[in-house]
Amino acid sequence: MSRLELNEIPHLEEIGSIGDVFDAARIRKNYKTLAERQATDNKIVPSLEEAVRLSGLKDGMTISFHHHFRNGDHIVNMVLDKLAEMGFRDLTLAASSLTTVHEPLIRHIRDGVIRRIETSGLRGPLAEAVSRGLMEVPVVFRSHGGRAYAVESGKLKIDVAFLGAPSCDPYGNANGYSRDNDDGVRCGSMGYAKLDAQYADKVIILTDNIVPYPNAPFGIPESDVDYIVKVDQIGDPEGIMSGATRFTKNPKELLIAETAAKVIEASGRFEDGFSMQMGSGGASLATARFLREKMLKKKITASFALGGITGSIVDLYNEGLVKKILDVQSFDLKAAQSLKDNRFHQQISASYYASPGNKGTAVNQLDVVVLSALEIDVDFNVNVLTGSDGVIRGAVGGHQDTAFGASVSIVVAPLTRGRIQTVVDRVNTVVTPGRTVDVLVTDQGVAVNPIRRDLIERFRGTELPVCTIEELRDKAEHLVGKADPIPYLDRVVGIVTYRDGSVIDLIRQVKED
Amino acid sequence: MSRLELNEIPHLEEIGSIGDVFDAARIRKNYKTLAERQATDNKIVPSLEEAVRLSGLKDGMTISFHHHFRNGDHIVNMVLDKLAEMGFRDLTLAASSLTTVHEPLIRHIRDGVIRRIETSGLRGPLAEAVSRGLMEVPVVFRSHGGRAYAVESGKLKIDVAFLGAPSCDPYGNANGYSRDNDDGVRCGSMGYAKLDAQYADKVIILTDNIVPYPNAPFGIPESDVDYIVKVDQIGDPEGIMSGATRFTKNPKELLIAETAAKVIEASGRFEDGFSMQMGSGGASLATARFLREKMLKKKITASFALGGITGSIVDLYNEGLVKKILDVQSFDLKAAQSLKDNRFHQQISASYYASPGNKGTAVNQLDVVVLSALEIDVDFNVNVLTGSDGVIRGAVGGHQDTAFGASVSIVVAPLTRGRIQTVVDRVNTVVTPGRTVDVLVTDQGVAVNPIRRDLIERFRGTELPVCTIEELRDKAEHLVGKADPIPYLDRVVGIVTYRDGSVIDLIRQVKED
Repeated sequence: MSRLELNEIPHLEEIGSIGDVFDAARIRKNYKTLAERQATDNKIVPSLEEAVRLSGLKDGMTISFHHHFRNGDHIVNMVLDKLAEMGFRDLTLAASSLTTVHEPLIRHIRDGVIRRIETSGLRGPLAEAVSRGLMEVPVVFRSHGGRAYAVESGKLKIDVAFLGAPSCDPYGNANGYSRDNDDGVRCGSMGYAKLDAQYADKVIILTDNIVPYPNAPFGIPESDVDYIVKVDQIGDPEGIMSGATRFTKNPKELLIAETAAKVIEASGRFEDGFSMQMGSGGASLATARFLREKMLKKKITASFALGGITGSIVDLYNEGLVKKILDVQSFDLKAAQSLKDNRFHQQISASYYASPGNKGTAVNQLDVVVLSALEIDVDFNVNVLTGSDGVIRGAVGGHQDTAFGASVSIVVAPLTRGRIQTVVDRVNTVVTPGRTVDVLVTDQGVAVNPIRRDLIERFRGTELPVCTIEELRDKAEHLVGKADPIPYLDRVVGIVTYRDGSVIDLIRQVKED
Repeated sequence: MSRLELNEIPHLEEIGSIGDVFDAARIRKNYKTLAERQATDNKIVPSLEEAVRLSGLKDGMTISFHHHFRNGDHIVNMVLDKLAEMGFRDLTLAASSLTTVHEPLIRHIRDGVIRRIETSGLRGPLAEAVSRGLMEVPVVFRSHGGRAYAVESGKLKIDVAFLGAPSCDPYGNANGYSRDNDDGVRCGSMGYAKLDAQYADKVIILTDNIVPYPNAPFGIPESDVDYIVKVDQIGDPEGIMSGATRFTKNPKELLIAETAAKVIEASGRFEDGFSMQMGSGGASLATARFLREKMLKKKITASFALGGITGSIVDLYNEGLVKKILDVQSFDLKAAQSLKDNRFHQQISASYYASPGNKGTAVNQLDVVVLSALEIDVDFNVNVLTGSDGVIRGAVGGHQDTAFGASVSIVVAPLTRGRIQTVVDRVNTVVTPGRTVDVLVTDQGVAVNPIRRDLIERFRGTELPVCTIEELRDKAEHLVGKADPIPYLDRVVGIVTYRDGSVIDLIRQVKED
């Protein structure tokens, strides 16, 4: 091709999109068969250490993880142990959530391997330690939508994502299940991981199950993946998800669920083609069951169900009562199996689910959402993060996102839990602002946010036991007595952000007993 | 929340990922039902003009289009007419391909509305005019993979993408078909549009079919879409795709196809789990049919078929002979229908298909590809862009990408077409470098690239009519006589890039008769 001279091209300087003259000598065509290529010319690297080295990870950078393996997760601890061994320091750990199994991080924080944490939730010994002042820099808490928005907008830049996957082909097409069998680890949707795979500078998949190309339909496309590491075990199936949806037998929860279903029925949103999200708590799950009867009776179907998906939603789908499922996270094996089998059970990313950066985000299309709460106050502010002792033991999750997005957001909670008041004057920690919470359903009555005059009007004349939230607070106080204030120190240990990234509350260090 | 003071947060300056203090007054929760929201609070704008204004398009910017509507496309002309009317100038038109129906662009080029064009192909009056010196700045030709790579790497930055979609919900979830019926426009996969939607600064969907949310499974997710415009007609179904795969009855093509199937059989790649791509030309289509018999006989199945997908591949899938289909572009209605119905018929983006920026790109997993050619020379260089008169009348397509990626790339072509020689000394325009072309199958014999000694060895002792490519050239020359050189002028009118963005050849202006 020596005849080519680029300076013959008119307006060459204007055409910014072309390169040099082609050089045939640069071409290295691969003559191997597909079978041979997969075995040798792939993205699999021999060790986690090697993958870390190739990723270019440096001290002070941000690493990310997903929480689809919940309390069965082996990835976070495995990777942090390795990074500690390799001598990394001052990392920011941006997990979609962290839980009890991640206790070993305490050591890595003490040793300076981890300097900052961003997460949706924190539970167990790590949460205890953070609440008692473990970290120099406070933990940043985000909702699932808030995290997606921070990542998309570049506020939270992920340098290297370490993503566990129940199956992955040699090029990185990854899924939350295996097509070959139903053994091993299954997590269903990989919605949070999808986002990280798309935006992280480098993506490392950790898997115990390398399958043939193409692992399609894929949760994460290989085009988002840089390196693959085969490990012995990515997680403990028992800790990841339970086998079947367990319906509550708790009479208080059943009463709350039945009332919540009646609230939905009376809300003006219970029409053919409505949309819904149900949480995974006992009362939320039971609400789906009560709703089913009402749907059959009224002969209506839901256009879609969103969210963390449970088997109870799959049951509705299988009966034809829910037309489509948008699944960012599968809560049980039935949900994971349905994602694998059903064409209209669609895996969606955290951004698609809940990012406030997008008018069409799925939470904005919700008619009703049923949410739980640790505490709710007379201004309808909800706390899902800190316990009555002020210690962190929860997760923001999609709470803020769905409460904002849904036309009618319903919080279900017992009036009291043991000797602890649920409806209070002022929540310990504001996670979801009262302005976005429409109805509180307790076992002792239903309170409607005064700004929802439309709903107050609709509930008038129904059999719903409507009262004011102050009445519920008084009842709760009467039952268990007003709690003493939590003995907080001044020091800030956690920053609760709203989904737009603004700071909605601060969590302070609890005083040692 | 006035009690919040951000300066209480230790190491605040270090935490770059949070915003200001939350302000509840900013929250505007939407109380409407899903049905009401879809009707009023959506991404639909009243006119194309309004969408253009909202997109922030300015003179000199780059706009993009997909070619899934082929010669039935109404979008490119509709949008350019509007942009001309609105007074835009000096735009770069980056289409995934252009064809005969786009003749009206000639006027917009003359009027200065369009200054540059980037495309995979060019046919008809626009191609004629470009070949005769219409444009001041030469047209840049790219392969599908090369375009994806240029877009991903930022070399080709798309400011506004105008994407036609056969169905779209009010938030932008778009598909190449309608779930409701089989009327109207159908194009199946929207693989090229997927890429543009992902990377363009602003994305406008044009559709004649607004469907209820969520239009899932979606080809383009709403999170990639900014504005939606409802138009009367996005395209002419007749021009978009033919109803059924038409098998050739041309004896020359059938002979070539049968020989190509034998070449595949003898190539050492015809084993259980092999992978393939077949073009949409008569001989390529027929090759799939001959291959079917050999697969049944040998009792093997293909792990996947890639590419532009035709009904003949769907037939193999339905028989269980192909396990998965990766579809960047559906060539006929049968392919489009299968994409809609079959879970293992997966839509993939242009990047996933062919980007050279990614080790795992699908073309790299091909065992065999069957490709066509306008010309092929004794160095195995292939021309699929210019005719024997030097005029542009073709498309790079996935030719470079699959020839490079496939373990065995097979070019099928008749030795001569009418009085025109197909096997020549030197092609008019080098599109696919000979180093990546392994076998030429003609009606008069089979030539193997000398660098593929492995294949030469394998074909020895088979009944394949192997000869040298010089022998084929001589036969062709003998049959139709050596053609006169094309009367080119010096002026460059087209730049042919290789998939890595380098310049592999230049197309010069043809002399007027």
